[in-house]
Amino acid sequence: MPANLDFYFDFISPFGYLASLRVDELARKYGRECRWHSMLLGISVLKVMGLPPLTQIPLKGEYLGVDLKRYLRRHKLTLARSREMGPSNPIAAGRAFHWIDARDPALAKSAAKAILNAYWQQGTDIGSVEAVVTIVEGAGADARALRAGFASGEADRLLRAAVDRSLALGVFGSPFFMIDGEPFFGLEKMELVEEWLASGGW
Amino acid sequence: MPANLDFYFDFISPFGYLASLRVDELARKYGRECRWHSMLLGISVLKVMGLPPLTQIPLKGEYLGVDLKRYLRRHKLTLARSREMGPSNPIAAGRAFHWIDARDPALAKSAAKAILNAYWQQGTDIGSVEAVVTIVEGAGADARALRAGFASGEADRLLRAAVDRSLALGVFGSPFFMIDGEPFFGLEKMELVEEWLASGGW
Repeated sequence: MPANLDFYFDFISPFGYLASLRVDELARKYGRECRWHSMLLGISVLKVMGLPPLTQIPLKGEYLGVDLKRYLRRHKLTLARSREMGPSNPIAAGRAFHWIDARDPALAKSAAKAILNAYWQQGTDIGSVEAVVTIVEGAGADARALRAGFASGEADRLLRAAVDRSLALGVFGSPFFMIDGEPFFGLEKMELVEEWLASGGW
Repeated sequence: MPANLDFYFDFISPFGYLASLRVDELARKYGRECRWHSMLLGISVLKVMGLPPLTQIPLKGEYLGVDLKRYLRRHKLTLARSREMGPSNPIAAGRAFHWIDARDPALAKSAAKAILNAYWQQGTDIGSVEAVVTIVEGAGADARALRAGFASGEADRLLRAAVDRSLALGVFGSPFFMIDGEPFFGLEKMELVEEWLASGGW
């Protein structure tokens, strides 16, 4: 049985969101199961790397905005969020995702898609537990049990453990893909990921 | 007449070198003139960005090595240099390049190719003026006039002006491509650059 395609993303990373729209289809095309993993880019990974938020890095910050707008034009996509709106805190979304994922990975993926859609296509602030619970309840999650998971600290522990695992694997950006032990960083690596899947690697 | 394809690179950047092997053919295919511009990634740009050498950034540094080796395997290429050898100082190469470029851009491109080949395929240290002069003399440059350009400070002034120009354009990495005013960063953007050239942009 072929290994998973593991997809890592931060809920508030636009390039992660754009990858999320394509990654399941890519995995399916090559008979791979696609496992989703939320991570915390700004809150955790960039601190480990000693970097400021990417949008604040001189030259690169501006370029990322140009690159994002170009991708949207090319793929005829729009987003309800702009950089000027400022990001939501992604911790509640990450906790909910990993609490659900520990019980039902397929439901966790549906919940993640609902959160991403609310944030990027409806402009919803996903920074509060209540906002996240409402969204994932709409995707089929048990809101009462999830609230208990927040209250007990279990959701927090699961998110922390997941972030530690992804760091140990070397995941340092969003999106990030792991296939057959091989790391691929960035939305623009999806064509290379496809070549890897098609060819069996090189 | 279509605009140039402007190609920016640091002599000691492996990804810049790998792009240099493909960029002329890419421009020719779409009837663009390819102009080469050497820049100083570690010495100048990363300081403006507030970043350490990329290979020293936790997680990312290791990934870049994996990504480079994978590219080499995929394209059946080898390099005579490894990270363990340590980089040469690229200032002499940059000064020579821009001194020649101010007089004869086509010769500057040939000189750059000779320097890149010496560094990446023969493992030559290009850190000294003498090493660089010897290499570019082999490519047809006037060694005596170039030495005078070093001695007078003209080569230094030309390099500094070029670095300032590239920073003003937002060039922050190697390789970097500017086409029709549109910036593209990274070796993995060459397919997108080709799509831009083929489609007229989007």
